[in-house]
Parts: sequence; structure tokens; C-alpha cells
Amino acid sequence: ADDAARTGAAERNAQLTKPPGALGRLEDLAGWYAAWVGDARPRITQPQVLVFAGNHGVAAQGVSAFPPEVTVQMVANFKAGGAAINQLSDLAGATLGVHALDLDTPTADFTQGPAMTEDEVCAAFALGWTAVDPQADLVVTGEMGIGNTTSAAAIAAALLGGDGWAGRGTGVDDAGLARKQAAITAGLAANPGRSGLAVLAGLGGRELAAMAGAIAGARAHRIPVILDGFICSAAALCLHAEDAAALDHCVAGHLSAEGAHARLLEALGKTPLLSLGLRLGEGSGAALAIQILKSALVCHSGMATFEEAGVAAG
Amino acid sequence: ADDAARTGAAERNAQLTKPPGALGRLEDLAGWYAAWVGDARPRITQPQVLVFAGNHGVAAQGVSAFPPEVTVQMVANFKAGGAAINQLSDLAGATLGVHALDLDTPTADFTQGPAMTEDEVCAAFALGWTAVDPQADLVVTGEMGIGNTTSAAAIAAALLGGDGWAGRGTGVDDAGLARKQAAITAGLAANPGRSGLAVLAGLGGRELAAMAGAIAGARAHRIPVILDGFICSAAALCLHAEDAAALDHCVAGHLSAEGAHARLLEALGKTPLLSLGLRLGEGSGAALAIQILKSALVCHSGMATFEEAGVAAG
Repeated sequence: ADDAARTGAAERNAQLTKPPGALGRLEDLAGWYAAWVGDARPRITQPQVLVFAGNHGVAAQGVSAFPPEVTVQMVANFKAGGAAINQLSDLAGATLGVHALDLDTPTADFTQGPAMTEDEVCAAFALGWTAVDPQADLVVTGEMGIGNTTSAAAIAAALLGGDGWAGRGTGVDDAGLARKQAAITAGLAANPGRSGLAVLAGLGGRELAAMAGAIAGARAHRIPVILDGFICSAAALCLHAEDAAALDHCVAGHLSAEGAHARLLEALGKTPLLSLGLRLGEGSGAALAIQILKSALVCHSGMATFEEAGVAAG
Repeated sequence: ADDAARTGAAERNAQLTKPPGALGRLEDLAGWYAAWVGDARPRITQPQVLVFAGNHGVAAQGVSAFPPEVTVQMVANFKAGGAAINQLSDLAGATLGVHALDLDTPTADFTQGPAMTEDEVCAAFALGWTAVDPQADLVVTGEMGIGNTTSAAAIAAALLGGDGWAGRGTGVDDAGLARKQAAITAGLAANPGRSGLAVLAGLGGRELAAMAGAIAGARAHRIPVILDGFICSAAALCLHAEDAAALDHCVAGHLSAEGAHARLLEALGKTPLLSLGLRLGEGSGAALAIQILKSALVCHSGMATFEEAGVAAG
């Protein structure tokens, strides 16, 4: 991050026509964003939403309320403009990129061994990295993939330890939840590596690897990122496990209704911007949060100073 | 509210391409809004932000970190486009109406007797009522008035009882906070009436009366309202004290950093949409929340159904 831009933004913030601190977290967001893009008075004009889709071998264990063919059906819905993320991206003035990763070839069932080979995880990571538009001034990473809350919960369990990472996902019943928990336990045993990248390959999925790649790629371009919910956070956790500073260019867009998301965000050291009970994925919560970040910057960069407005500074 | 529109919206919601309930509070908001506007598939295209400004006799008690002349200076800033609310209204696609109420004639000091006569409070209420554009499809009510957190805290204390309603406002120091608390105690003694409208006249201010009038006027037109922070909520409380259903067409836009706002919202039975530490007033938190409500409606009204998209419904 750029210290000169950070300092310049703080100086500007102190002169704006409001009591000190009265815009609360919006002020913090503006300073953080300014530092990452290296501009003390920036605006967001080209946000990019990236949705990655993948299929999961572990879905065969009956861990989801929906059948695996819904992944490809929802990709068609994204491309036709009918999903929530289409509406939210349009409203936020963002471009939407949809990337389906080898949907006809699900990952291997991680209860039996690694979900992906090294070549497969690297290819998915690289696809995510290169999906980032270098001209974008904000990136949102989202996903679609029947079975992927099981993958995300397994990643969290592997890297953070403890129980209770499995949740209801899209709405699985008690029996399904028990199968999900059993699959995670089996997956942890079948994939003993505990580095971030080993866990991503062993327990992740192509869309999770692509999100991790996009987050890392955005960092290379100094583009701030808004993280979405539980699955996106699990993908981000794999980077965080390799380097605790790897997510400094990211904010958490929202707290998902998926039960374990709060614990996962706490492990990442992130406080969510929104908490509206969403548990859809697709990047939907992060896309909502684009408007919060835009709001922070229109205030920071558009407001008059006390001197410009002839207002007494108290 | 319109039961047919509510039912129609619920039927539509159940068919949209997402797991049931996955959009969380956005789904509730869409159903509530649909019922109030009488349209099962509505969108927000004409939001109106109303900012009312008033001066307070109680400011002479030294209750604010800013001098009273800041009220008129900030009104000029609103009209010139330099304040936070200008930026936030523009970003949300809202029109902004700014109404300064007799700034040269502050209300009477409520520590000595009623802040406003019956004629004065009625005139301010009527101004707020008629400021609502009947063509608007959403109204936000905000305010500016040095001294008005003292007025709002006094209203809350009078109608809800208990202590601790006084907070730091724009940033008053410990001595100022003690003066603020003393002024509230004196105001409660000098204004013994405890009906909502008696409290509004006795302890309120012109901008608070105008906000109450705008909230009531919007109801007459069946226009949903987003409430702003502590001061707006205190104005709304005066209506709520007269009729517990008077705010059914309102949602709470945000939880302010002003300490007692959470208690006040609890008394109103409202859960805030956002909690970002704002304590600016001007309608700023509610204007941010316009985008959340718009997001709820673009999803509700723009998404494809399972049948339209050819997606399996689980």
C-alpha cells in the first residue's frame, strides 16, 4: 500500500464538512482504498465481479439439497442475466465475468484422496488470476458449485482445526448434514497436508482455486477486493495460511447466514461490512457491499472542505 | 398495506432461482415494500431524500461541540452540493430536498418551557408533510440542527423513561455532556406533558416536527420510508407514541454510533439494515440504505424463475 496516498487521504478526511469520525467506517474504508490504489482522492468507476463455477466429486456423498446439474444450469442463468448476481452487478455498475471450470469433469471425491492434482489446482488458480481485468478498480470474487460448502468447511477444519464447520449450505436436511460432516471427517483423513496450497488442492475445488487466484492476481495489480461469504472466505483462508498479509487488500463484504462464517472471518481478522442474512454465494453479498465502498469514496472525494464551504470547524 | 401484493410477492419470491431464504433480509424487504406500494413486482426509481434544518434555543446551554451558526452554514453547503448527503443522494439516484425552518428564530429554550407553541409545531409538521413528493416511491428523512441530539435525547427520556439517553452528539466533551444531561433533566421538569405530540412540541425542534410530518405524509401516500439515526428515530417515536402502527411503513436504515440509538430502535421494534458507526445525521445512514432496498427489489423483480431459467428447484 502507498503511504503517501494514505497520508493524503487522512489529511483530506480531517478537512471535510462533518464532525471528526462522523462517517464511521466509511472513513476507514476510504483511507484503506486510497492507500491500495495510490490516490488520495479516488473513486470507483470500474468494479469487476467474477463468478467461478465448478463441480465437486464429493457431491456424490449426498451433501447438498440440490443435484449437481444445478451448477451448469445456474451458469446458463448467469449468462442469460437471470440470477441475483446479474441484478446486483448491474445496480452496482459492475461488469460481470462468468467462468465455468471443466463442469463436465468434477473434482475427485476428496473423501478418497486429493480433489485436484497439482496441475489441476494450478490451472484453476491461473484462470482466476488472469480473469482479473488490470483496468478494474475493485474486484468481487464469487462462486457457484453444488457441494462447495462441504469443500469450504473441510478447508476451514483443516487449516483452523475444531469442529462445527459444516452448515446447512443451500438448505440440506439433518441426514444430509450428517453425511456432510462425515465427508469432511473422511476428507481430512484422506488429505493429510496442512499448508494452504495443499489444503486448497486436496479439499478445495476449481472455483475455490480460481477465487484464490483472482484475489492474488488483484493484489499484483494493487486492486482492492471485496470478499463474499463462507466459500470465498475459505478460498481466501488458503492464501492467508501461506502469508498472513496476503489479504490486506481485501475487505469482508458481508457476514453470511452459513453458521461458521463468523468464526472464519474472525480467523482472517476481517469485520464484515454487511450482515443481512444472505447465504446465496455468487458474489451476492460482496456485490451489495460495492455500494458501501462506493459511498465511502463519493463522500471522501466529493465532499467540500470546511474552508471551501465556509463552515466553522467547531 | 396491500395483502394481494404481499401474497403475490411471496409467490414470486418462492419461484426465483435461489435456494429458499438465501437472500435473507432482502427477501423480507421486498415483500414489505411490495405490500406498501401495492405492486407484487416493484422497483424503486424515484427515491426522495428530505433534509430539514432547525435551530434550538437549548443550544445556548452549551450542549454542542459546534456553534449554532453551523446550522445555516451547513444548509448552504447542502444547497451547494458539498455535504455528505449530496454525494450519497446522487449515488443512490435520489432527489434531495433541503428545507431550512426559520433558522433566524431558534425554538425557545426547553429548559424554561415548551420549545414550540402549538402553531409553531403544526406549521413545521405541515411543512414536512407537504415536502413529500406524491410521485416518490421511497422517502428518506434527515436533519441538521446544532443542539438537536439534546432535543432527541429529551424526547426519548420523556416518552420511554430511564436515564442515559444523552450521548456525545457531534463530539461534545465531558463538561458539555454534563450540561446536556442537566438541560434534559430541566427540560423534562419544564415540560410535563407526555403524549407524543406534547413531547414533540415541548422538547422537539422544527426539523424534528418536520420529519414527523414527512413520515406521516409519506404514509398517507403509501410511500415507504427509511428512517435515519438517533434524531430521526426520536421524531418517529413521537408518532409511535400516538399510534404503535404509525411506523409500519418505515424501516430503520442504520444503527448510529450515538450511544442510545440501539435502545431507541428497540423501543420502535426496528432492526437496522446497516451498522457502520455513522453519527452524522443529514439522512446519511438512511441514504446509504436506499441502495440496500433497491438491491432487494432488483433481485425480487429482475431475477428469473426456476421455470424461466430451466433450473432444477431442488
